[in-house]
Amino acid sequence: MSTSKPQLYTALSPALMHLYDASDSIVVIIDILRATSTITTALYNGAAKVVPVLTVPECMEQGKNLDGITAGERDGQVAEGLTYGNSPFEYHKEFIEGKTLVLTTTNGTKLLHMALENGAKEIIIGSFCNLTAVCNYLISQNRNVILGCAAWKDKVNIEDSLFAGAVVDVVKDHFNIACDASKIAQTLYNAAKDDMYEFMRKEEASHYKRLTGYGLTKDIKYCLTKDTCPIVPKYYSGELLVVSGEL
Amino acid sequence: MSTSKPQLYTALSPALMHLYDASDSIVVIIDILRATSTITTALYNGAAKVVPVLTVPECMEQGKNLDGITAGERDGQVAEGLTYGNSPFEYHKEFIEGKTLVLTTTNGTKLLHMALENGAKEIIIGSFCNLTAVCNYLISQNRNVILGCAAWKDKVNIEDSLFAGAVVDVVKDHFNIACDASKIAQTLYNAAKDDMYEFMRKEEASHYKRLTGYGLTKDIKYCLTKDTCPIVPKYYSGELLVVSGEL
Repeated sequence: MSTSKPQLYTALSPALMHLYDASDSIVVIIDILRATSTITTALYNGAAKVVPVLTVPECMEQGKNLDGITAGERDGQVAEGLTYGNSPFEYHKEFIEGKTLVLTTTNGTKLLHMALENGAKEIIIGSFCNLTAVCNYLISQNRNVILGCAAWKDKVNIEDSLFAGAVVDVVKDHFNIACDASKIAQTLYNAAKDDMYEFMRKEEASHYKRLTGYGLTKDIKYCLTKDTCPIVPKYYSGELLVVSGEL
Repeated sequence: MSTSKPQLYTALSPALMHLYDASDSIVVIIDILRATSTITTALYNGAAKVVPVLTVPECMEQGKNLDGITAGERDGQVAEGLTYGNSPFEYHKEFIEGKTLVLTTTNGTKLLHMALENGAKEIIIGSFCNLTAVCNYLISQNRNVILGCAAWKDKVNIEDSLFAGAVVDVVKDHFNIACDASKIAQTLYNAAKDDMYEFMRKEEASHYKRLTGYGLTKDIKYCLTKDTCPIVPKYYSGELLVVSGEL
């Protein structure tokens, strides 16, 4: 019965990504705190494109080449040589509209490159900011899906797993939920969904502790809020652009 | 406050084991369906020792050398050349007492060897059959712990994660629960603990489907039952033996 539906898998860490066949799949890159939330927000607020890069020197070089805004943090501070940080609040409409954002992130960009190397058919960006848009898009495409959690230095984290679980919870009737990791994520989401911020606080999620240590409570709350930016960013040879059409 | 307590980490898959420093830790090998449940049961029922090996030829050779019982399954059948299977029900007292069991398993033994290569200070065997004994032992040792899930070909599974969560739930006040994976496992356990078998069935856990396909419902129920075998098996250069003392 369920065999005619496309398959959905969850890789809870980049170190588990190779276990899944990306070649016929849409890979959703998930890095809730804060890369994919910030990318989605910047594009929703009118950024012409976002260019994700791994290193600070690469960010500086690409920023120059593309006449773009260079952004990225290391240990909660704007990285030396760059101009802006990783907070979604920096990329409001008045500032970012029509501009190119060159953003250096570690975990999320690493995973994106890994998905490319694995021959992913398509790569999109997922965050709570665009949860429903992502789910609608996945359902409309009727293709296998891999939910790829960026994690933290390969260690499984709560917030990316929560988002994977939220997607599973919404799309489950349209897919064959084909791995235990997806079901674990869904169970986590169901335990947390009434107040994800409070869940993160109570469980002392590692990233919650790291970011509140930098005074970024507001960022965490925003990154756990659903559907503030109903768009789908998609990767096209080096650039993230908004997928067009109703979602 | 919590910094003086030892650290507890959970590796949800062998592919994540290298992220944790085993050199000053007790590693708990977890392969609920069915390797660690069967090992614990055989030792509780009086087996002189259990010798875990990776391959069928190795099992045959060691069985000969040690005058042991050779056991192991491939795809739900006793492997060709071996005499017994992986079911805990085969290793009752009348049969196994005083004997050496040479058991070939894939996921669990692979993880055990990985923990050895990572220089694990100590390796013990965990299953629901010896949950409380394992928890009491870990608390008594006052040393860092890594809960190592054997998973299925590196894919995270529900039953091993459930056991990790059960351990976290029992020992949490005695350790610094230092990673999100432990908290995810604990949340999973809390969602499932009232009826773990029903949870596995409802979630269509991949291993549940695989084993019920082989008619092994009874094995699954046994492997999810707590504290039937209150001992702690420990690895001593190639052999698993019961740790002595009250637990």
